[in-house]
Amino acid sequence: MKKVAVILSGCGVFDGAEIHEAVLTLLHIELNGASYQCFAPNISQHHVVNHITGEEMSEQRNVLIEAARIARGDIRDLNELNVQDFDALALPGGFGAAKNLCDFAFKGAECDINEDVANACRAFADAQKPAAYICIAPALIPQIYAKGTLATIGNDEDTAAAVTILGATHQNCDVADIVIDEKAKVISTPAYMLAKNISEAAGGIEKAIAKLIKMS
Amino acid sequence: MKKVAVILSGCGVFDGAEIHEAVLTLLHIELNGASYQCFAPNISQHHVVNHITGEEMSEQRNVLIEAARIARGDIRDLNELNVQDFDALALPGGFGAAKNLCDFAFKGAECDINEDVANACRAFADAQKPAAYICIAPALIPQIYAKGTLATIGNDEDTAAAVTILGATHQNCDVADIVIDEKAKVISTPAYMLAKNISEAAGGIEKAIAKLIKMS
Repeated sequence: MKKVAVILSGCGVFDGAEIHEAVLTLLHIELNGASYQCFAPNISQHHVVNHITGEEMSEQRNVLIEAARIARGDIRDLNELNVQDFDALALPGGFGAAKNLCDFAFKGAECDINEDVANACRAFADAQKPAAYICIAPALIPQIYAKGTLATIGNDEDTAAAVTILGATHQNCDVADIVIDEKAKVISTPAYMLAKNISEAAGGIEKAIAKLIKMS
Repeated sequence: MKKVAVILSGCGVFDGAEIHEAVLTLLHIELNGASYQCFAPNISQHHVVNHITGEEMSEQRNVLIEAARIARGDIRDLNELNVQDFDALALPGGFGAAKNLCDFAFKGAECDINEDVANACRAFADAQKPAAYICIAPALIPQIYAKGTLATIGNDEDTAAAVTILGATHQNCDVADIVIDEKAKVISTPAYMLAKNISEAAGGIEKAIAKLIKMS
């Protein structure tokens, strides 16, 4: 059975992993006959956001501990990820991908990437094992792959411009569709960068994960 | 378009709503051509659990604010739920259903139910609008419906016995299946009371929500 490593960035769209995208990713990994292991970096969240008001809350939470909620407790520290144990990699989106895994949400084209995230993602790229980046997570693609690698974050002009400056070749993409760089074996799909509801997000994620398992 | 009210109990299987069950519920509401509005009681969680270690954390969280993570911010206080605005009701499981919506997890057959939860659920029962209770949430059924109403929590003997003492007629049920009380218009399915993975949970929830929308 093929095995997919899933990197989560917390638990909740505004300060962590987008929950619908994460769950749909896990679901479609299984529906395609594969299994998954969740990982997250063992670091403090950039901040904690009240998801009703959008305001920052005066508390601190840990990315790995919060991501464990999505993984029902079965999660491992990202620095333990050994690429040899897996056939493919998937990164759901949510602001956590751009606030905790890297600081793209704050610095755009000037962003830095968390070291454990960089090591894990580059290991899959170097091993030529396929990866799927969902929603805003494709902002990581130019920081992992060669200049010119195809990626999509949907059609937001400013975000696409920043991803282009970072070195990717950005392709606009419909919510129901995916962008594939066959050479780099990297797939991206807009999900909630464009989706107006969960069934729209589900369409693109279903395609992305099916392609990911097929490529592996 | 039919509209379903979804009552969440926090965000995370061990102290709130089970995230996979909640997301699958929202997904299948939309895939059946209906829409949803999430609600949660505006109360403190019974406790906060570190989902990696299973240990209690020394912090306090609010059920409504945490549930908003699953609802991507679009959630309302349960005491604002007006049954006239909806065609059906759905309650995903997770320990939150048995720790925050009522205290079944601690008191079993001696449990009490949160007043806002009782008012909302009884309003759907009184209006003869259908409801789906998932996982451990069916422990609420005997506290809402007439004595003898059919319900399932899977096949755990102690839990089934407590539900029976509370007044339901418990039927053992496979993870892929649902129990229907046609007269009360109430559906239940075991989900993660029995599911060993997300695709098993998805099967029963898909059936339960399809039946819920059909009944409404």
